Amino acid sequence: MIRVAIFGASGFVGGELLRLCAAHPGLEAVRLFGDSRAGQAVEEVHPHLALAYAGARIEAYAGGTSLDDIDLVFAALPHGQSQSLAPAILERGIPFVDLGADFRLKDAAAYEQWYGEPHQAPELLGAFVYGIPELHRDAIRSAAAVAAAGCYPTATILALKPLVDAGLIDPASLVVDAVSGVSGAGKGLKDSTHFNSVSESLSAYGLLTHRHTAEMEAALDAQLLFTPHLAPMNRGILATCYGTATGPMAADAPLQALRTAYADEPFVHVTDQAPATKWTLGSNAVQVTARYDARTGRVLAIAALDNLVKGAAGQMIQCANLMLGLDEGAGLSTCGVYP
Amino acid sequence: MIRVAIFGASGFVGGELLRLCAAHPGLEAVRLFGDSRAGQAVEEVHPHLALAYAGARIEAYAGGTSLDDIDLVFAALPHGQSQSLAPAILERGIPFVDLGADFRLKDAAAYEQWYGEPHQAPELLGAFVYGIPELHRDAIRSAAAVAAAGCYPTATILALKPLVDAGLIDPASLVVDAVSGVSGAGKGLKDSTHFNSVSESLSAYGLLTHRHTAEMEAALDAQLLFTPHLAPMNRGILATCYGTATGPMAADAPLQALRTAYADEPFVHVTDQAPATKWTLGSNAVQVTARYDARTGRVLAIAALDNLVKGAAGQMIQCANLMLGLDEGAGLSTCGVYP
Amino acid sequence: MIRVAIFGASGFVGGELLRLCAAHPGLEAVRLFGDSRAGQAVEEVHPHLALAYAGARIEAYAGGTSLDDIDLVFAALPHGQSQSLAPAILERGIPFVDLGADFRLKDAAAYEQWYGEPHQAPELLGAFVYGIPELHRDAIRSAAAVAAAGCYPTATILALKPLVDAGLIDPASLVVDAVSGVSGAGKGLKDSTHFNSVSESLSAYGLLTHRHTAEMEAALDAQLLFTPHLAPMNRGILATCYGTATGPMAADAPLQALRTAYADEPFVHVTDQAPATKWTLGSNAVQVTARYDARTGRVLAIAALDNLVKGAAGQMIQCANLMLGLDEGAGLSTCGVYP
Amino acid sequence: MIRVAIFGASGFVGGELLRLCAAHPGLEAVRLFGDSRAGQAVEEVHPHLALAYAGARIEAYAGGTSLDDIDLVFAALPHGQSQSLAPAILERGIPFVDLGADFRLKDAAAYEQWYGEPHQAPELLGAFVYGIPELHRDAIRSAAAVAAAGCYPTATILALKPLVDAGLIDPASLVVDAVSGVSGAGKGLKDSTHFNSVSESLSAYGLLTHRHTAEMEAALDAQLLFTPHLAPMNRGILATCYGTATGPMAADAPLQALRTAYADEPFVHVTDQAPATKWTLGSNAVQVTARYDARTGRVLAIAALDNLVKGAAGQMIQCANLMLGLDEGAGLSTCGVYP
Repeated sequence: MIRVAIFGASGFVGGELLRLCAAHPGLEAVRLFGDSRAGQAVEEVHPHLALAYAGARIEAYAGGTSLDDIDLVFAALPHGQSQSLAPAILERGIPFVDLGADFRLKDAAAYEQWYGEPHQAPELLGAFVYGIPELHRDAIRSAAAVAAAGCYPTATILALKPLVDAGLIDPASLVVDAVSGVSGAGKGLKDSTHFNSVSESLSAYGLLTHRHTAEMEAALDAQLLFTPHLAPMNRGILATCYGTATGPMAADAPLQALRTAYADEPFVHVTDQAPATKWTLGSNAVQVTARYDARTGRVLAIAALDNLVKGAAGQMIQCANLMLGLDEGAGLSTCGVYP
Repeated sequence: MIRVAIFGASGFVGGELLRLCAAHPGLEAVRLFGDSRAGQAVEEVHPHLALAYAGARIEAYAGGTSLDDIDLVFAALPHGQSQSLAPAILERGIPFVDLGADFRLKDAAAYEQWYGEPHQAPELLGAFVYGIPELHRDAIRSAAAVAAAGCYPTATILALKPLVDAGLIDPASLVVDAVSGVSGAGKGLKDSTHFNSVSESLSAYGLLTHRHTAEMEAALDAQLLFTPHLAPMNRGILATCYGTATGPMAADAPLQALRTAYADEPFVHVTDQAPATKWTLGSNAVQVTARYDARTGRVLAIAALDNLVKGAAGQMIQCANLMLGLDEGAGLSTCGVYP
Repeated sequence: MIRVAIFGASGFVGGELLRLCAAHPGLEAVRLFGDSRAGQAVEEVHPHLALAYAGARIEAYAGGTSLDDIDLVFAALPHGQSQSLAPAILERGIPFVDLGADFRLKDAAAYEQWYGEPHQAPELLGAFVYGIPELHRDAIRSAAAVAAAGCYPTATILALKPLVDAGLIDPASLVVDAVSGVSGAGKGLKDSTHFNSVSESLSAYGLLTHRHTAEMEAALDAQLLFTPHLAPMNRGILATCYGTATGPMAADAPLQALRTAYADEPFVHVTDQAPATKWTLGSNAVQVTARYDARTGRVLAIAALDNLVKGAAGQMIQCANLMLGLDEGAGLSTCGVYP
Repeated sequence: MIRVAIFGASGFVGGELLRLCAAHPGLEAVRLFGDSRAGQAVEEVHPHLALAYAGARIEAYAGGTSLDDIDLVFAALPHGQSQSLAPAILERGIPFVDLGADFRLKDAAAYEQWYGEPHQAPELLGAFVYGIPELHRDAIRSAAAVAAAGCYPTATILALKPLVDAGLIDPASLVVDAVSGVSGAGKGLKDSTHFNSVSESLSAYGLLTHRHTAEMEAALDAQLLFTPHLAPMNRGILATCYGTATGPMAADAPLQALRTAYADEPFVHVTDQAPATKWTLGSNAVQVTARYDARTGRVLAIAALDNLVKGAAGQMIQCANLMLGLDEGAGLSTCGVYP
């Protein structure tokens, strides 16, 4: 068994990594780092994992904590923290899959622009491959470190990339209107994630300035206006994407471009229905569709996924499987938990 | 008291009209027509109204049913049905507020194009004023009949009209991405409104072809691509609207245009926050915001309202108040039921 | 207009008092005390009230703050705080309706037993009438101060009192299994009220020891085991109550006892259906039913209400109306906001 | 691979069986019977399974349909239908796990009493073992057919059986107050499962007469009053159970009885916390707790599980694993999908 350390093990993504590792034939989560809950039992922090992790505890990570017996590191930490963590892991040559935003942008200046603080480890930016297997499978296979893409970018990029690549839409014209479940905001206590703020409500947030914009623009080589929304549900991302068509085309030309691009992808389902986030709940699947609107000359593309799986922990496992030479789908399911 | 007849009294909008009439100082709902539930007590059909309508019953409406003692008619029926109902009401000179789509478009050909069937009473189209008081207050005051705007159009039009009128956005460039609560789909039993289909899910529907598009384009004199979505909540419309700016402007120029347009409006709250549908739940209020994104040259405008109040029954009452010379806000609240 | 001061104006009950005062013909909320949000505009603290309270602000209350121009005080504060507030109000002879637990129990020792701290103003306990108008209408009319009942006790007591009084059930045998919406836990940020803890979950809490037990036992002169639960909804209390029948009886004898007891009550609807909390949402209504199970020799009684209205702010207004000689139902609705 | 036929494959339990089979190392779902959706693709009926069951279709089952190549039959059909199906399966000697109520009661008269119709195959009642592995593991191992327990009974029986067996509670005194998610009512379209009926509501149903009562009483050899409730969530059963203590005992005596009874059970987690349904979502785990209330002389026991897994499809798989000599936990997870 590959011995795995998880940084951020007490959070939602940490819990999801533990759930997926428990079902994985080759990975075993042996070190669970989570400073705020250090010393507590998994049963207490994640009661939904009580039986599978009976006796296991969250522990603190200090500078000198040994990682000698670790074969793989997952990190799901607030942005900024991976910059100080990464050197120790990379020096030891331990495969590292990071979910933070720290190493997703290739350009330290862009990082500073969107995140408002200078990058602390710009020399390591080149060591990371952007973690969407459908785009960079071969690079991930040979990477020392992967910066797994975020939830909004994964949905948006998978919906739009084949359409941009096929020249069907003008990359300067993109509008992305996306909706997330509440778990995307993490376990921290905020007015905006209080049940009574969210339930029976729909609202936008981060108007004009959401940081994931940079990541999407980089991956698509495009300019886009991105508006995230919060919906009263636990999980799920729905990205509804608009672009100006480069010219008249068949109504199903965008759908065909998606079918072509994803014909052999194990986790992408191209459908002519309008996908629902619920179809993907708990699974690593993405559901995508697209069509051309002759009336307005626009292309519409939609993607749905589970922000904690294909948008986080599942994608991290998928990347790790590639890095380690395991079956790409090991430990991952395409079946949603429905209803 | 003004004696009111309600057609469609057993549906969600019908129930909401009854709730609002019960709180209205001048209106009294005396005839409750609802063919599918005819003969049943209000207590049975609308248990939430049991005390206020003790003893009242839903009744059937047949061609010969007398309306002699009726001073005002509200209709909330499936599209198509008002076309056969309207002549009898208008002949009698009874003020009529209709929520159906039948008389919203001024052009019988446009009706046929979007609704797929010829209009049955094209000669009456001119008798109806489009029912958004913020746009057509004076015309509503003197109208014999009002075609109250639908839920999506009310949100969209109130968000965008001042920006189009002020020349801030290109009316050919509009994209409207909106989300509705489930009550917008009515009380009928469908797979898509089963609790287990909706709860914990977000999906788009009616891609490219939703009929409300026509109404929005007519009111805004614009072309737009409209994508409605369904969210796991009972009520609420959030319309997130995008347009290409006609040129560089101050970041808050769109917000100022909204403030100017709605300075004296009793039910429109212009805010610099991103509005949440929940702020408007149960009330006739609309919350709107807007801003200019210099980076992409686009204007973003957002409106939130309760689809059953400002998007339906409340707007109908507001229009009726104007037609009858009552205080415009009589029986209506601006206070949301929160949380 | 009666000039009202609200202590706890920034909380959920405070917001609901503001909403109800805005619709009340005789009450005007003129002082809004809320220490944690002092200085902020109502628009900011309660955006759902932005239009009705344009320009109003939350303010801090200090010992010397004058209440000279105040005709009525509402307090919705954490338990313990009313004990220090009450003397100043009662001395001035201002009618006072308190929602805290401080003055609900008539016995200082019982308060100390259940709340774990000595009572600070035991000499004032006698000045308060327990605030359920259906039980103590006349006493409330002439009271200087009212301790409005809590949400669980109101539902439980209204379901069981007529059955105990009629001698249908053994008062030593009661089991109360109740479910609350999340707003009952208040606006404070806790793991247990994070959206992701609650949504798609049902759990019990406060096993064996919930403090409302004392209040219910006192009002019913009974012994009961009370288990509260949390449901994924904003509002609502459903109390399902069980007692051993004192002997065989007609299946509908308990229902008839409720009908008799509540025949003239404006806010209680006795029904033979199983009531749903949603029927009461936003209203001051209570829906109750009961029946006798010959098979097991037990009586089942169920009550549903909105914890923030009949279980809090609405009941406070109802009590205040009685104290002030206003119409008992002024400013209150029996119509639920449905769906 | 064991070749599995599923009757009722288009329903919620059918979909869950398909999801679990996809993750099972030894079972393969090869025949998917579902009359109402016969001919449709799995992608259409269960879009959440589109990738795992690409190309598979639902088919009709007629009397002559061959089951020759089938090694195991699962049935999740409305009660009554298994009575006509069972003979053909049992004659062929195919292991059969039925989720219907048809063969759960050992007594045809009891079936007729609770289900209101005579049993059609009373001669087969003896062939079925009641399917709760924690109670009847050995009998299931050697059974030709298993009648898997329902969702409410599984929760109730697992919470109470050790307490009854240990003599801690009076079996004539039981009250069970339980709450279910909406999926327990199935995929059929009913007013009571419309999103707008359920969301933001809590209600009881089936007062005094719910059919699962018989099953619980039989398994516990007890008399009980059972009140089911519906909560606004997709999945989950929480059973809160009350019994009169047989005498004074240590406060944690009931908890210790549970710990003893379930010490070696792979799917039962005994906890001193109040369990939440969400901890079990998507998993085959049960979470149970109990305590003694010296004040009222009662014992309180609570169980939480996922009605579609441990309350249906998971339990069926667990039983099948035992019948087939596979690892009891094959294809099943103890990890909840959280949040």
